[in-house]
Amino acid sequence: MIWNRPHLLDIESLSPEEIIAVLDTARQFKAVGERAIKKVPALRGKTVVNLFVEPSTRTRISFELAAIRLSADVINFGAEASSLKKGETLKDTARNLEALNADIIIIRHSATGAPHFLSRVVNAHIVNAGDGAHEHPTQALLDTFTIREHKGKIAGLNVTILGDILYSRVARSNIWALLKLGAKVTLCGPSTLVPRVFEQMGCRVTYNVEEAIAGADVINLLRIQHERQRKTMFPSIGEYTALFGLNHARFAKTKPDVLIMHPGPINRGVEIASDLADCGRSVILEQVTNGLAIRMAVLYLINGGTAAPEPGGLN
Amino acid sequence: MIWNRPHLLDIESLSPEEIIAVLDTARQFKAVGERAIKKVPALRGKTVVNLFVEPSTRTRISFELAAIRLSADVINFGAEASSLKKGETLKDTARNLEALNADIIIIRHSATGAPHFLSRVVNAHIVNAGDGAHEHPTQALLDTFTIREHKGKIAGLNVTILGDILYSRVARSNIWALLKLGAKVTLCGPSTLVPRVFEQMGCRVTYNVEEAIAGADVINLLRIQHERQRKTMFPSIGEYTALFGLNHARFAKTKPDVLIMHPGPINRGVEIASDLADCGRSVILEQVTNGLAIRMAVLYLINGGTAAPEPGGLN
Amino acid sequence: MIWNRPHLLDIESLSPEEIIAVLDTARQFKAVGERAIKKVPALRGKTVVNLFVEPSTRTRISFELAAIRLSADVINFGAEASSLKKGETLKDTARNLEALNADIIIIRHSATGAPHFLSRVVNAHIVNAGDGAHEHPTQALLDTFTIREHKGKIAGLNVTILGDILYSRVARSNIWALLKLGAKVTLCGPSTLVPRVFEQMGCRVTYNVEEAIAGADVINLLRIQHERQRKTMFPSIGEYTALFGLNHARFAKTKPDVLIMHPGPINRGVEIASDLADCGRSVILEQVTNGLAIRMAVLYLINGGTAAPEPGGLN
Repeated sequence: MIWNRPHLLDIESLSPEEIIAVLDTARQFKAVGERAIKKVPALRGKTVVNLFVEPSTRTRISFELAAIRLSADVINFGAEASSLKKGETLKDTARNLEALNADIIIIRHSATGAPHFLSRVVNAHIVNAGDGAHEHPTQALLDTFTIREHKGKIAGLNVTILGDILYSRVARSNIWALLKLGAKVTLCGPSTLVPRVFEQMGCRVTYNVEEAIAGADVINLLRIQHERQRKTMFPSIGEYTALFGLNHARFAKTKPDVLIMHPGPINRGVEIASDLADCGRSVILEQVTNGLAIRMAVLYLINGGTAAPEPGGLN
Repeated sequence: MIWNRPHLLDIESLSPEEIIAVLDTARQFKAVGERAIKKVPALRGKTVVNLFVEPSTRTRISFELAAIRLSADVINFGAEASSLKKGETLKDTARNLEALNADIIIIRHSATGAPHFLSRVVNAHIVNAGDGAHEHPTQALLDTFTIREHKGKIAGLNVTILGDILYSRVARSNIWALLKLGAKVTLCGPSTLVPRVFEQMGCRVTYNVEEAIAGADVINLLRIQHERQRKTMFPSIGEYTALFGLNHARFAKTKPDVLIMHPGPINRGVEIASDLADCGRSVILEQVTNGLAIRMAVLYLINGGTAAPEPGGLN
Repeated sequence: MIWNRPHLLDIESLSPEEIIAVLDTARQFKAVGERAIKKVPALRGKTVVNLFVEPSTRTRISFELAAIRLSADVINFGAEASSLKKGETLKDTARNLEALNADIIIIRHSATGAPHFLSRVVNAHIVNAGDGAHEHPTQALLDTFTIREHKGKIAGLNVTILGDILYSRVARSNIWALLKLGAKVTLCGPSTLVPRVFEQMGCRVTYNVEEAIAGADVINLLRIQHERQRKTMFPSIGEYTALFGLNHARFAKTKPDVLIMHPGPINRGVEIASDLADCGRSVILEQVTNGLAIRMAVLYLINGGTAAPEPGGLN
């Protein structure tokens, strides 16, 4: 058995074989999204709870649709209206969901380690949908899936991640997945957001964007979080764009088959020139489609599904 | 084929035959709502997104139930928590929904033409659930359906629309539908809200409410939007009620078989005396029931369903 | 026929036999929650509306899951975004839901009697999910179910309810259910919150917590509502905990087989010492599980289901 984990908590603890098992399984589920009837009965009668203590419409909907297409019943449990506001602890909230026979709890939380904690206090399957600045494992899996689909492999590729690395769970999960699968990872961004400590993980760190993107097979542009970072970490959005934004002059110096990626939502004209986001090298919308397939695969596998079933085996 | 449009964007561009095709189809779906099991499998495995950038519980629920009764999977995507708040463009939001394999996007938006725009930038089917002060096509279809059900026809009827015409998408869509089907349309309300320009569409405009309702076969009372209009367009709610509200004195002068309609929610004692809203000539609640049937018909038709199927053909 | 009511409005009007019928039916539904596929087709094609004018994530989700596991279609209709905010009356809102062919309306409302009122103005089945300080009948049914499951009976048991009795619909519904089934009920709490008038219902009232819990077979701790009560009804949370909180010293004097109950969400360290909430005598999480079974039974019975069906009779 390639996959026998009851939870998906992070990428760091996965073996390369486990990552590949998810990607191979997701390939089957991607085909489901292209059918006339986009459903399989794999999780029929199972209860999936979206416990999004930190709000995120986009990721929540992707998980919700993934669960629905597996025929599960989905409950959305947002923080804004929840008992957490009445002073209930996260542990009590989760144990209450478990008492409602929840089979899978998908949690997004601002605290690092919240999913790991839940996995120890309840019996339900736990999926990490983003915990603080720590990990966002399904994002890394969908990014890796997308790269593999286009390049046929991960090993040996030059992948550059550009932007706020320090506070980004997307970056951390991607770094783990890419290094485990043998890619060479370059990190670039304002020095306040890309500390040299990442070199200890095995990444190259550079503050020169031209150097970062020359020779890259993949450029993954992280979203600049207007709200949080603008005031403290760099002088202005305009300066970020001038120094690190992917504009036409820089794009002209990239490899002709470079993949442009972004976890979304994009700030057009900030991280990337607007028309480059829509150009033939951009796979930003494919990432969204692949995210759904990855999340279906993850929900299916942690619930005991067989990795990479034959086509038709999902029916 | 009477209906071969992939979208429902407005009434203005529909032919009379297309309007009739929707009404005939809705008649079959109305019967579904009266069954013990109120579902048909027509849209099983399809994904319908309610993209309500301008909030509206009432219309959203009607569309949501319509989709559910067609066995579709429904995702509600409200503006309050969405990526639109993070500066994402409407086009990017819609293309992301398309990347999630959304089959149908139902959009309500404060900007005129937003549904038409979406229909050009994504491949999903688009339904206009109200765009600014422009159109609200399903409201006009359900109103027309209700009138036809009671009067057996539309052609030749005298229909009076009373209230805020200028800012009303309900009025605009109704005017188009009624004129296309051969009704005579009278508009009445405060002169600031009922400009003479509507005469060019073929309507009669009058500021004399007694004249407007005498001889009317149908009186459609539009909702006065306390919030927006009170301060600028007319002196006070009380004055509106005195001058244009449907009270008993005025009702006594209407035809004995007049239909009283209102798109809801009603302001009792403002547009209409409270007990008149509940009298035997009021079809306000029937409009709600018919709205569900119309929306089922629209979702079914734009997805490629056959117009006006035989009873049993929906199973 | 033991159960032939179309609504569940309160406990006060139920006979002991009717209460027992719900508990017996819930026993069958509890088993559904333990299956691999946690669904039965009992309400397939029925429309259930959660009309929560007073918000409550916890109770809403319990009802929503109950309806989903009966295969009903569920619409959540919160007050925050609803037409009620636009000045629509509760009656009009409910009649609009009825016009959408809603089969069951579950209502939570801050006004006493709101569910009874709705049951007179619409034809849909009505379930009271809490009306003001009046009743919360499903909470009393699940509490009674939990007691019976552990003690094998209700008659003759000593049940103590501790906390805010005056403003508590949970207390009122529990008192009715317990007295009807033959328990002896003791009420205890600050004198401002436990008026002597409850003695007229047949309860014992005491302000001495040691006296209240000595000899109790069941202690039901009500939640202290920080928001509302702190300032007016008693000096401070700390003082409440000191005078009425269930701490180790007090717990040591209870019967060895006492049941500790709480409707949740609990304030750890306020109504109860944190570790006592998790001790072997606490059935707080079982109450959550049983709540789902009770709500499935209620929805099933008011819709015409047979009381206490044979195992397998639910499919």
